[in-house]
Amino acid sequence: MATEVQNYEGALDKGLEGVVACTTSVSSIIENTLNFRGYTIEDLSQNASFEEVVYLLWNDKLPNKSELAAFRADLDKEMKLDAAFIQVLKGIPTKVHPMAWLRSAVSLLAHWDVDANDNSHAANLRKSLKLTAKMSSIVCAYDAIRNGKDPVQPVAGKSIAWNFMYMLGGGKEPDAELVKIFDTCLVLHADHELNCSAFATRVTASSLSDLHSAVVSAIGALKGPLHGGANEQVILMLKKIGTLEKAQQFVKDALDAKEKVMGIGHRVYKNGDPRAALLRKFSEKLTQKIGEPQWYQMSSLIDDTMYKEKGLMPNVDFYSATVYYSMKIPTDLFTPVFAISRIAGWCAHAFEQYANNRIYRPRGKWNGKNGLKWQDLDKR
Amino acid sequence: MATEVQNYEGALDKGLEGVVACTTSVSSIIENTLNFRGYTIEDLSQNASFEEVVYLLWNDKLPNKSELAAFRADLDKEMKLDAAFIQVLKGIPTKVHPMAWLRSAVSLLAHWDVDANDNSHAANLRKSLKLTAKMSSIVCAYDAIRNGKDPVQPVAGKSIAWNFMYMLGGGKEPDAELVKIFDTCLVLHADHELNCSAFATRVTASSLSDLHSAVVSAIGALKGPLHGGANEQVILMLKKIGTLEKAQQFVKDALDAKEKVMGIGHRVYKNGDPRAALLRKFSEKLTQKIGEPQWYQMSSLIDDTMYKEKGLMPNVDFYSATVYYSMKIPTDLFTPVFAISRIAGWCAHAFEQYANNRIYRPRGKWNGKNGLKWQDLDKR
Repeated sequence: MATEVQNYEGALDKGLEGVVACTTSVSSIIENTLNFRGYTIEDLSQNASFEEVVYLLWNDKLPNKSELAAFRADLDKEMKLDAAFIQVLKGIPTKVHPMAWLRSAVSLLAHWDVDANDNSHAANLRKSLKLTAKMSSIVCAYDAIRNGKDPVQPVAGKSIAWNFMYMLGGGKEPDAELVKIFDTCLVLHADHELNCSAFATRVTASSLSDLHSAVVSAIGALKGPLHGGANEQVILMLKKIGTLEKAQQFVKDALDAKEKVMGIGHRVYKNGDPRAALLRKFSEKLTQKIGEPQWYQMSSLIDDTMYKEKGLMPNVDFYSATVYYSMKIPTDLFTPVFAISRIAGWCAHAFEQYANNRIYRPRGKWNGKNGLKWQDLDKR
Repeated sequence: MATEVQNYEGALDKGLEGVVACTTSVSSIIENTLNFRGYTIEDLSQNASFEEVVYLLWNDKLPNKSELAAFRADLDKEMKLDAAFIQVLKGIPTKVHPMAWLRSAVSLLAHWDVDANDNSHAANLRKSLKLTAKMSSIVCAYDAIRNGKDPVQPVAGKSIAWNFMYMLGGGKEPDAELVKIFDTCLVLHADHELNCSAFATRVTASSLSDLHSAVVSAIGALKGPLHGGANEQVILMLKKIGTLEKAQQFVKDALDAKEKVMGIGHRVYKNGDPRAALLRKFSEKLTQKIGEPQWYQMSSLIDDTMYKEKGLMPNVDFYSATVYYSMKIPTDLFTPVFAISRIAGWCAHAFEQYANNRIYRPRGKWNGKNGLKWQDLDKR
């Protein structure tokens, strides 16, 4: 007899909605508040650098001065991409979505990592540091390569946020205000409890597969339009609507057709995603700064209308779209930018999974045919 | 307020053991019997070719003569690897585990696939066909490249099993009996309900990410020693034991130390994995054929002892190890060989997920710190 199955019908075919899969001490969503390791996202986004948040997520404590200095120095050492690795990257056709390219690049990174086959926690910390340091370099290398340019090398002693804007800008000193806001965006996106890509990380890690495999799964999951891919979809939607005047009608039409409005609604938050509230301010500020306030105004109108009509509120992707747009980040890099931050959370979830592991192996409920018998080819 | 959570404590931190995640009509495990689309594995392994099983898994029916001929012709066309793709593969260092290499190669394959960005079912069927046709070519290309040779091109009009043995053997006509048994091994491994890699496929697909991303996640999950990686571990264990005389003591020591014996036990089957029973016969036959019956004898003794002592029975990985060993497949290719077959099931699960999708987004139960407040760097 097969193992007895507890049939949680309530969650069947609902993407495990409401099912608690594991304990976690990485991040929590309690009473509409997002916490990383016990600190609220409001507190962190106001005070912390992305590097401090990465350290916090991995070590369950904020670094002191010397720990942070050492951590930054370690990241500095690992930001550069190996010349042989860049050579292979140049051989990959760029005509797929950059998230597919990122997936391939991060998978390939394992082949140059001396720790690739070592699954100890010490090795996983080293691999996580390398992945986090290199992620923005890879995304910027993609953008350089597809434009027929050589990737810009990162500058030591600068933050991940600074270097991303520097490399993406082709080696120009980035605007300090944009760097500050981008750094905060990285903080806001660093983790989010058992979201789909964190769960994908844990599922792959749970066979005791290696960290690169787990992170590559996460990138694949993040790529989808129901997850990280949504921020890209938001800006495409705004561009399609075109002007403020058409925004209300657009929402009305979408509601009538029962179509999803990208970036609106969240399975877990029903009274608003705290990250969206923070990003909304940045969106207002930056669209004004670039002289295109209409994108914020349209977003704001859609936001308000959706709340009035359906009680739905924006999620993290809704306002990050116009923030990234204002930073002149190419639209198709919005989701890769999400990955530059979320790698921190994925690694933290992998550590937690490895430390208290059981392989993810749920059951399926059979709804297919029964008792069929083989028929030879000429009788079919 | 956050969504109400149904706290299924019974499954918490247990890898969703006993939790039904979704309905499925791909394969079932009912009363210790494994069925693909309603046909028992015993029936299929005795009668079906791997190609017929792939068709069955994807189309929910066995192909008739003309359908099978057309399907084989389509596979024929897609088995060859693109020259530019092989060139990139040659640039990837081979000093990682072949499953990491396979993960990278399959991710890269997307960049040469015109359907990569098309998520329609028709495109997904085409992508699945290409992936299934090319998987064995990729694994054999890896083995050629690491040995400094040019990959052997597959032969049209021959089965996947035949071509695998032909390419792996450097272009020599393979032994017909081995091809037949290998084909049956592919049938046996083609799917297995909600195993970890099928679940990884579905989790990644559930963000509506693309098929390559879903399959790459699955390869990552299969790589782990608690999943597909186990067949490789079994042969390493047998080699380490060395002789039949030492096998009983090895099991005794493992039991005393409460160590896991690779390939023994299964979460779902408690009265024996039906695939193991079928593979056991092949193991006996083939180890004799190559004049090394001790590997089967050792396996058999470990099997019997584990049952007597712990009531545990072998899973699919236990006897496939000695079967693949007898076929002179390099040990570190055992898990990639698993992937050559399981790609069929992964694609079927992806189709099913896309057709009735909800994003996988469970919850975590918080067990971390609460209510912490930011402290400035110099006060830490």
